[in-house]
Amino acid sequence: MKKLILLSFLISTGCVEISKKEVAKPNFGLVIHGGAGTILRKNMTLEKEEKYRAVLAEAIQVGHRILKRGGSSQEAVEKTINIMEDSPLFNAGKGAVLNSNASIELDASFMEGKLLGAGAISGVRTVKNPISAAIKVMEASPHVMLSGSGADTFASEQGLEIVSPDYFLTERRINALKEVQKASSISKTNHKNQSIDFINQQRYGTVGCVALDMFGNLAAGTSTGGMTNKKWNRIGDAPIIGAGTYANNATCAISSTGWGEFFIRTVVAHDISALMEYKKLSIQDAAYEVIHNKVAKLGGDGGVIGIDSNGNMMMEMNTPGMYRAKMDAQGKMEVKIYIDE
Amino acid sequence: MKKLILLSFLISTGCVEISKKEVAKPNFGLVIHGGAGTILRKNMTLEKEEKYRAVLAEAIQVGHRILKRGGSSQEAVEKTINIMEDSPLFNAGKGAVLNSNASIELDASFMEGKLLGAGAISGVRTVKNPISAAIKVMEASPHVMLSGSGADTFASEQGLEIVSPDYFLTERRINALKEVQKASSISKTNHKNQSIDFINQQRYGTVGCVALDMFGNLAAGTSTGGMTNKKWNRIGDAPIIGAGTYANNATCAISSTGWGEFFIRTVVAHDISALMEYKKLSIQDAAYEVIHNKVAKLGGDGGVIGIDSNGNMMMEMNTPGMYRAKMDAQGKMEVKIYIDE
Repeated sequence: MKKLILLSFLISTGCVEISKKEVAKPNFGLVIHGGAGTILRKNMTLEKEEKYRAVLAEAIQVGHRILKRGGSSQEAVEKTINIMEDSPLFNAGKGAVLNSNASIELDASFMEGKLLGAGAISGVRTVKNPISAAIKVMEASPHVMLSGSGADTFASEQGLEIVSPDYFLTERRINALKEVQKASSISKTNHKNQSIDFINQQRYGTVGCVALDMFGNLAAGTSTGGMTNKKWNRIGDAPIIGAGTYANNATCAISSTGWGEFFIRTVVAHDISALMEYKKLSIQDAAYEVIHNKVAKLGGDGGVIGIDSNGNMMMEMNTPGMYRAKMDAQGKMEVKIYIDE
Repeated sequence: MKKLILLSFLISTGCVEISKKEVAKPNFGLVIHGGAGTILRKNMTLEKEEKYRAVLAEAIQVGHRILKRGGSSQEAVEKTINIMEDSPLFNAGKGAVLNSNASIELDASFMEGKLLGAGAISGVRTVKNPISAAIKVMEASPHVMLSGSGADTFASEQGLEIVSPDYFLTERRINALKEVQKASSISKTNHKNQSIDFINQQRYGTVGCVALDMFGNLAAGTSTGGMTNKKWNRIGDAPIIGAGTYANNATCAISSTGWGEFFIRTVVAHDISALMEYKKLSIQDAAYEVIHNKVAKLGGDGGVIGIDSNGNMMMEMNTPGMYRAKMDAQGKMEVKIYIDE
């Protein structure tokens, strides 16, 4: 009788159900983003839309295959982001935006949720895949964050693929820089106003991926070229653990994209995790609270993607659009661009 | 009768008491640290101890005078940290530790709790007072974080005091670098082991300050030279908003010091704030939880200082010592070095 009561209790609390599920059908899944911002149908052609959707679908399927064959969330996040870094469509790796000197400075960060291992790089100029360099910092250095030419040197010493800075250049970004610089030279009153012009244009495109593998391990990664026409070796939220990227098996894995300055000040990725850990909010409610009540109240915008330790997925934004996709253990895939999809 | 019941209720909840106090006696206070680590009596002379205590007392009194005359927590934090940056005793500004090329790379960050404004710089080489540059990034740029030579350029453009890199050099740090490099070349197996040697020596000395002013505004700042013999333009926790520094009028102001990599991975400063905001922990309990249960469990060590919106002060560490001081609205000052003081 006592055993029966115990069993009923366990079923009612979900304990038996959960452990049965784990054995019978391993849970896994992943979510990706390719940047949030003023992505409007009126500025888009069907052909352009198709291109974005195709790369998003390709990237998420690469990660899904890794997870399905029992690969780690770390491997899935790295390889998925590599696809988007290699595509000139997104502001990461090839196709990254240009700084005020018409050169590129790439940032990336990675975190895994089991041991809370993390790695990040900022301002690299020669590393083909910045997310792979961030992971290498975690694995092969005693540090979490390396920057500038030192980070390039480290990546090269570790045998990562090094390319000429020209590799990253695309006509689209060269033109975008010219336009932003022209616009800002017209309304040049002070640094603040000038840069708000830059920021409001061409500031989306960061890529990110979060994943849960069959072993219950979460991982998150983010990679970006930052902001068009950025000056003074500016660092945004993408390489900042806690702001752009955070993972913890106890809660969730998060990757952010948007107006980086606001995301740093609100410590977006860690705040979502803290709301889940300390206030027992769901990943969806936690993300809503942070994006709509915290970031938005300061005047910032952008989006986040996340997955929790039970495989619940989240894609939240306060912008008209975010390039995004998700795929669950059953292989159900969703690829979306606009907020109302 | 209803009014009487309401009054009793307000007294019992502390509301009347608090508002009376605010009008009658404005609350303010500040806490500082000059680094946490293996600070042991056996390695210290009385003369050396006196020197540290004197600069800590001088620094905190500078901040206290600002707060007492109705100055802002931002001004108090800046001027207090400036004193410690200008002293060769601490690993910040003059007297900062040297990187593997025998040059200095300074990091700092600042945050204010009213509007959640923040600024940070990393890897500067010519800015006399890095904390002032971090504040300038917040005030005069659209960015939160600048790095490397770009941050130096920005500081110079803003009219901050620029010095020759030689200004920061001290014999003590030159010798420390030589010793660390000698030790590491003996036991050179791989980057990881090599760097654990570096880290375990000469890694304390970061300075920080948190303050509450009469207007209920909190501010926090942290300034450091990082880690002796650091490579690859390593960035530690000190310039990372959320890890080294965090302030929010709703909760607290925090500055961290210790083994930076662990403090980044545990998002120390923001986690203390989140425990207060979401779990309603006191600042003391929140800091204890983060330092002893989160940082320590990963194998990290260090300390934090904090002050909450009611003026409650906290200095918590899991190291044998932390140079530290606190001073409340009544002018009661405490200056301490060892954990058992």
